[in-house]
Amino acid sequence: MIESVEYDGPTMDQILGVCKRRGIIFQSSEIYNGVAGFFDYGPLGVEIKKNIKNIWWQDMIHRRDDIVGLDCSIIMHPNVWKASGHVDGFSDPMVDCKISKMRYRADQLYFAEVIVKDEIIGYVSVLEDEHMQSVAENQARDLKRKLGKSGTLETVVLKPYTEAKPQEYALIPSPATGRPGSLMAPRAFNLMFRTNLGAVVDDSSGAYLRPETAQGMFVNFKNILNTYRIRLPFGIAQMGRSFRNEITPRNFIFRSREFEQMEMEFFIQDDASWQEWHQYWVNTRLEWLKSIGLRKDLLGLDVHRSEKLAHYSKACTDITFRYPFGEQELEGIAARGNFDLTQHQNASGKNLEYFDEQQNRSYLPHVIEPAIGVDRLFLAVLCSAYCEEQVGNETRVLLKLHPRVAPIKAAILPLVKNRPELVDLAKNLYQKLSRMYYVQYDESGAIGRRYRRMDEIGTPYCITIDFESLENQTFTLRDRNTMEQKRFTESEIIAFLADHCL
Amino acid sequence: MIESVEYDGPTMDQILGVCKRRGIIFQSSEIYNGVAGFFDYGPLGVEIKKNIKNIWWQDMIHRRDDIVGLDCSIIMHPNVWKASGHVDGFSDPMVDCKISKMRYRADQLYFAEVIVKDEIIGYVSVLEDEHMQSVAENQARDLKRKLGKSGTLETVVLKPYTEAKPQEYALIPSPATGRPGSLMAPRAFNLMFRTNLGAVVDDSSGAYLRPETAQGMFVNFKNILNTYRIRLPFGIAQMGRSFRNEITPRNFIFRSREFEQMEMEFFIQDDASWQEWHQYWVNTRLEWLKSIGLRKDLLGLDVHRSEKLAHYSKACTDITFRYPFGEQELEGIAARGNFDLTQHQNASGKNLEYFDEQQNRSYLPHVIEPAIGVDRLFLAVLCSAYCEEQVGNETRVLLKLHPRVAPIKAAILPLVKNRPELVDLAKNLYQKLSRMYYVQYDESGAIGRRYRRMDEIGTPYCITIDFESLENQTFTLRDRNTMEQKRFTESEIIAFLADHCL
Repeated sequence: MIESVEYDGPTMDQILGVCKRRGIIFQSSEIYNGVAGFFDYGPLGVEIKKNIKNIWWQDMIHRRDDIVGLDCSIIMHPNVWKASGHVDGFSDPMVDCKISKMRYRADQLYFAEVIVKDEIIGYVSVLEDEHMQSVAENQARDLKRKLGKSGTLETVVLKPYTEAKPQEYALIPSPATGRPGSLMAPRAFNLMFRTNLGAVVDDSSGAYLRPETAQGMFVNFKNILNTYRIRLPFGIAQMGRSFRNEITPRNFIFRSREFEQMEMEFFIQDDASWQEWHQYWVNTRLEWLKSIGLRKDLLGLDVHRSEKLAHYSKACTDITFRYPFGEQELEGIAARGNFDLTQHQNASGKNLEYFDEQQNRSYLPHVIEPAIGVDRLFLAVLCSAYCEEQVGNETRVLLKLHPRVAPIKAAILPLVKNRPELVDLAKNLYQKLSRMYYVQYDESGAIGRRYRRMDEIGTPYCITIDFESLENQTFTLRDRNTMEQKRFTESEIIAFLADHCL
Repeated sequence: MIESVEYDGPTMDQILGVCKRRGIIFQSSEIYNGVAGFFDYGPLGVEIKKNIKNIWWQDMIHRRDDIVGLDCSIIMHPNVWKASGHVDGFSDPMVDCKISKMRYRADQLYFAEVIVKDEIIGYVSVLEDEHMQSVAENQARDLKRKLGKSGTLETVVLKPYTEAKPQEYALIPSPATGRPGSLMAPRAFNLMFRTNLGAVVDDSSGAYLRPETAQGMFVNFKNILNTYRIRLPFGIAQMGRSFRNEITPRNFIFRSREFEQMEMEFFIQDDASWQEWHQYWVNTRLEWLKSIGLRKDLLGLDVHRSEKLAHYSKACTDITFRYPFGEQELEGIAARGNFDLTQHQNASGKNLEYFDEQQNRSYLPHVIEPAIGVDRLFLAVLCSAYCEEQVGNETRVLLKLHPRVAPIKAAILPLVKNRPELVDLAKNLYQKLSRMYYVQYDESGAIGRRYRRMDEIGTPYCITIDFESLENQTFTLRDRNTMEQKRFTESEIIAFLADHCL
């Protein structure tokens, strides 16, 4: 965990502000008043997201020789999710209020005994929130007053509803009605979205939208082994949409119902040191996150204690990020043993073993799984990049996006638009660069305003074509972060961009 | 339509063979015996698919200045699909057999009267199939024999069940039982997959998986206009998964239940010549398909006759491709007027008009929509690329993929693996090229076998490091199609790949 240094990143309002102003992210179906937990990425947002995904793919697959890609369907055979444990175990505890018909996540509904002079005079309840302690204390005081009790009110100790005793259910007030007697016992609510395949809607046609991409790698492990020349240790990587029917989606794109994942299953020999490989992947992933521009001071590690782990799990380390709403899991790196392959081998009746030529024996490989959500990484990227600076009398808002992540790599700006030679030179450069990069040509407005526009959307380089360019075919290249300008020839610019943007 | 020249493309068996052998495409959840209409893309397949999508994005968005990208959620507000007409109209006619409980697509179930000497002696039925005429004729002869009728059997004329008269339903035999009396009247079956959001499963929580990506562009039209500096005419483009609950998915990845689309809505002024823009997009898209390597002789155009068009549609032209199973729609280019924006403006109550500064008036723009399915394009790419050639005594199987589409751009092959200087030189080149391209290093086996392996997966260039390389730092570059080899320096190779692979 990160030591408690004062958080000095941007606020959520600043992030939401730039997303809205520049059309980076919209609420899904906004003209229909939105649908909770779903988001659309606008023209700049889609480029940032594509870049994040492409960099991951490039660094995981193209620039290594031990990992291959995969792209599975979102809807798989329902038995996949039985074998994986999701049908039985992928659930949140829910509690119903039988009067209001409201439903709450039991681990987000908190309650407390109200104790005056050692006597429990009643209960209060609140929904999880940063202010819940003070709200509960107010409720407790109100209750004491209402019941006419005198004496010292003891400190209110909040506990989640999942820890309530059965005899307490009827005593805890429902947040909807404010009165006890209507809350039910918590029960498991599966988070997978269900649908039906084919023309008949019944149990036999039921199917799920995948809640993670990882199972695709296990189910196709043998297919890839049989068709691709690759030997242990090796990884299979996939990215794509996953769906979870979150009851309370929140924190913008951090916890949504539809999201993208980038997951990799790295298979190792069953007698290899999984500790070493696990550590290797924790380090590799952390370095990668820094390399694409995440703020080092906001990144942290959370090593799960062994009693927190699932029975099959050997270790799990989260790479955390300090968002404006708190420190949260960004990427998980889990050592899962051979649990998943074992489950699918048993459920499918197919032999999924790997034949090790060197050891002349067959076995189920073990696996290390680094898994990250694209959307929460997107948010961490924005939080790391957002800056406000005073420049003279003005506040300069800028996104210090890494050039590989930036939606537009360079802006091509003729100093003025009424000099055809200058405009031609600029358009010619634009044509050349756009073959390779997403660049933008902009001739409208004062050059200072054009720079600010590019700063706010994170364009790392502004190339200005000025009168000197007409004389010696050089251009100024302005760095977004330092605002420094240097003169370059065209071929120097091409080499510079290749060095920084690829 | 294409004139009837003999089809000389590959067979479906050849395509399926290379996909299976090289792990390009797998049946989804194969170890669980698959799930109909869903496919997974293996290590090479995912690269080809990513390349197709990236090229489209690059050519549609990055290399133009009048189209922007978008990435919407798959699940949108259900009212989107009411307004678009999909809830009411996006359906196939289905027919139930009440005895077998089987369900058929009514337009794929064919029937015919069996007529002997001007008398209808009964009916036969068959499922759509290339042999259905002869199967039906056999059935008719059997029926005649069984009923002991003599005289000339008239020609069997098959019609789809959708054209059966109500009094005929009970007379047409069910394909499941072979006997009449159990088939019902056809009824509409909506093709959208349904699910439920949140914890309560009822009508109010119902939602759909999108059956197309296009509506995202209409719903976000005003969002983009308000946040991005762009004026008419301009386009919004999106690619991503769509879902259709096809009752009879078939023809491999051509008609599946989960697929990817690349769609673009090009908005034009309401008084612009839509005919000219429509023609422009038909031409542009056709040229693009050729540019990425589709065989010109297999491409065609199908101009929809006006009586075939939906009431709001002004024109629609399909770019067709001759697959092994026949000529089919590959890409549709539709002139849709302002139907979609009108529908969403009415349904949402939000003003979606564009304010035209030049004309000083507001209106709903019209739209031209080029829409293509990634998977069917993938199949057309494979069908265009697959070749078998006789080389000496051997059959050389090769995929003549365009270098931009090819999964691996170049193979780096040291002639022998037991000369460290040679291997070092090769690995050094591999490191440099892999920063930019997906390239593969391969040192195992005879060089000829390594070439063949690369031919079959469509690698356009093989770069061999031989003994001469040690002397003068040049390498041979072998062209996949011609098998010609030329010597290049490292910087010449880098320039060559940039010219051909970007």
